[in-house]
Amino acid sequence: MEYVDLGPFPRAGGHADAMALDAADPLGTFAHRFVPVEPGLIYLDGNSLGRLPLSTVSRVRDVVDHEWGERLIRSWPERWWDLADTIGNDIAGLIGADPTEVIVTDSTSVSLFKLTVAALRARPGRNRIITDDLNFPTDAHATGSAADLIGGREIVTVPSRDGVVGPVDDIINALDSNTALLTLSHVVFKSGFLYDIEHLTRAAHDVGALVLWDLSHSVGVVPIDLEATGADLAVGCTYKYLNGGPGSPAFIYVNSLVDAQIENPVSGWWGHEDPFSFDLTHTPAPSIRRFQTGTMPILSLVGVETGVGLTAEAGVENLRTKSIGLSEFFLQQSRIRLEALGFELASPTDAAQRGSHVSLRHPDGWRVVQAMIRHGKMIPDFRDPDSIRFGFAPLYTSYLEVHTAVERITRLMAAGLHLEYDDRRGSVT
Amino acid sequence: MEYVDLGPFPRAGGHADAMALDAADPLGTFAHRFVPVEPGLIYLDGNSLGRLPLSTVSRVRDVVDHEWGERLIRSWPERWWDLADTIGNDIAGLIGADPTEVIVTDSTSVSLFKLTVAALRARPGRNRIITDDLNFPTDAHATGSAADLIGGREIVTVPSRDGVVGPVDDIINALDSNTALLTLSHVVFKSGFLYDIEHLTRAAHDVGALVLWDLSHSVGVVPIDLEATGADLAVGCTYKYLNGGPGSPAFIYVNSLVDAQIENPVSGWWGHEDPFSFDLTHTPAPSIRRFQTGTMPILSLVGVETGVGLTAEAGVENLRTKSIGLSEFFLQQSRIRLEALGFELASPTDAAQRGSHVSLRHPDGWRVVQAMIRHGKMIPDFRDPDSIRFGFAPLYTSYLEVHTAVERITRLMAAGLHLEYDDRRGSVT
Repeated sequence: MEYVDLGPFPRAGGHADAMALDAADPLGTFAHRFVPVEPGLIYLDGNSLGRLPLSTVSRVRDVVDHEWGERLIRSWPERWWDLADTIGNDIAGLIGADPTEVIVTDSTSVSLFKLTVAALRARPGRNRIITDDLNFPTDAHATGSAADLIGGREIVTVPSRDGVVGPVDDIINALDSNTALLTLSHVVFKSGFLYDIEHLTRAAHDVGALVLWDLSHSVGVVPIDLEATGADLAVGCTYKYLNGGPGSPAFIYVNSLVDAQIENPVSGWWGHEDPFSFDLTHTPAPSIRRFQTGTMPILSLVGVETGVGLTAEAGVENLRTKSIGLSEFFLQQSRIRLEALGFELASPTDAAQRGSHVSLRHPDGWRVVQAMIRHGKMIPDFRDPDSIRFGFAPLYTSYLEVHTAVERITRLMAAGLHLEYDDRRGSVT
Repeated sequence: MEYVDLGPFPRAGGHADAMALDAADPLGTFAHRFVPVEPGLIYLDGNSLGRLPLSTVSRVRDVVDHEWGERLIRSWPERWWDLADTIGNDIAGLIGADPTEVIVTDSTSVSLFKLTVAALRARPGRNRIITDDLNFPTDAHATGSAADLIGGREIVTVPSRDGVVGPVDDIINALDSNTALLTLSHVVFKSGFLYDIEHLTRAAHDVGALVLWDLSHSVGVVPIDLEATGADLAVGCTYKYLNGGPGSPAFIYVNSLVDAQIENPVSGWWGHEDPFSFDLTHTPAPSIRRFQTGTMPILSLVGVETGVGLTAEAGVENLRTKSIGLSEFFLQQSRIRLEALGFELASPTDAAQRGSHVSLRHPDGWRVVQAMIRHGKMIPDFRDPDSIRFGFAPLYTSYLEVHTAVERITRLMAAGLHLEYDDRRGSVT
């Protein structure tokens, strides 16, 4: 990767504001709890893969060298057997759940499949599943697989009007007495639109349907109170704002009010009430642990513990305040400097309707991202056909980085560096 | 953990034989490729969790510090995206498969579920599933879940006569034109009995059924030639003899001859033909990659690569030769010293019918294991009600360790140290 020296950026146009905002940031010290990135690099993709906490480095070393290397099989009873449960307890504190309602288990995709099948089985007389066209593809794929296996179910994908704002009213209108399940992403992956969990959950409950929320793009940056909102089911990713590491396992939430109706459709020995009885007949654990299936991938699991710990220490309310601060500052700078260059907001304008990432559309979006990465020392990501996502991770993103990012894009565009790239589509990040 | 000093063991009763066998062992140097265990400890549980390869220590550090910490999201295209495919290719070389037929994916349990559902769907007119009562519980649980979801399927669990030897003839007699699937463990987890893949596969094919083999206790220590035997489907664990690390992900094999009939029932974005098109409609990858579902747990995946690499370097035929040597030496020593103390073989006597672990029954089995662990500096494992499993991992177990283990057990029993423990049942390992 080659970087062009864009020279010192002018100390104007918001620079003093950024410095002042950083100086007043109560979470400012948390950036030092992460392994530094290369000097000058601005990482704006924490919504896709969170950075590496310093505490995770030592934790993984200890797990490998000591717990696996020295203690070997003894670490199962000593350290590992309950780890997915205790991390689940920690996550419960971030999403307004009771510790008995959350466990870390397979990938987000497999977890979605499990809960979707379970929900459809819990509403056997109803044949409709409602979702939207802003959902992440794997959610739609899991829904499709579940519906296909159960059979006789119709998936209604409610279209958004502009690809940005969730079609809340149309979703509510689509709900009826034949609806088994409403399944949505809390924060949608492209535009960052934030659904109101309480509002939609109430509407679904009004027709007797269950609701499954994918919290992947909200957990750790948006306050969530699943119990208070009555949400039935949820899954969430741990490698985005929770900084659990590449592909770290997801979590499952089942509200205690519907717990008795929800069965794990993919049973395995780890979810058995007594795995070491080696019983061929599956008796589910009398707890959320029944949603386990196979042996947990321990090296990928331990990073979730340290990542969640940092988030809990900072506090989700504080993180949300800073997240909105970063996003609003970015949009202010963007309005001043980027709009004139052809960028257009592809996220809600109202901060209350956004998660922690913002998308900008540009006709040359693909080329701009290439120039940002290769010349601008920035890492955003690109989503077809023309969206650039800027992820603001309040644990480590600074206002100065936001300011500098806008400054660098302005200079790149002025220098025409993006025109060096082919206008092909696709994603490298 | 407290150890009693049992004193130097006598230099007789096979000690010279053990020394000579180690001196002649062509795989003897491989033990130095693993992180040392504590001095004097004899680890006989590699059939449950393999030891830590030295190369894995540096590999995991590099993945954490450099690939995650510094390269961040850039590591997906640079390093991680194809990792499960390339490791699958490496595993193919150990099991007589074509590289296009194998991929690393979820846990063994989830993988069993996927292939079982797929097999039942591929034989829609047939309502029976045949297995045995020696199978690992999670295999039975996955079969149960799959049958339950598909509906209208009968699971026939053929009983073994003695809990040791697989009921081969009874299984063959149970196969009929209504049989959709035969699902068995290649090496059964308690007794170590080794099924003949070719013989059973042919019998299943004679009635038009598919066969799913669980290779968890055989891959890496028993030569396997899936293509030559015509086996349809297989899964395998990577954290036993392949030394992939605690809970490292499993692999899936689909024979190219049946590939067109076998669909992944749990679709997700990682198995999509073009994940970054973010297409809500699932179009499976036109390869074994379609069996992926969610994002792979990278820290738990990389150890599989180094573990498989060591196994390939040693060679499965060489590993099998040493595995039989270790087991036969153990049984010889056991006959001389342990039978008189009440131990009884709970594994096949014929080496050709065994995998790489041997089980001994003892009326005080639970107490003996406690004494072995706490006083004898040995780690075997215990399986209800009375079996002690001795796992011989030919990559690092030496003949001297086998000899010393028998010697220590003899002394423990003579000193009555096992009588210090309650006669309760259960497992600590």
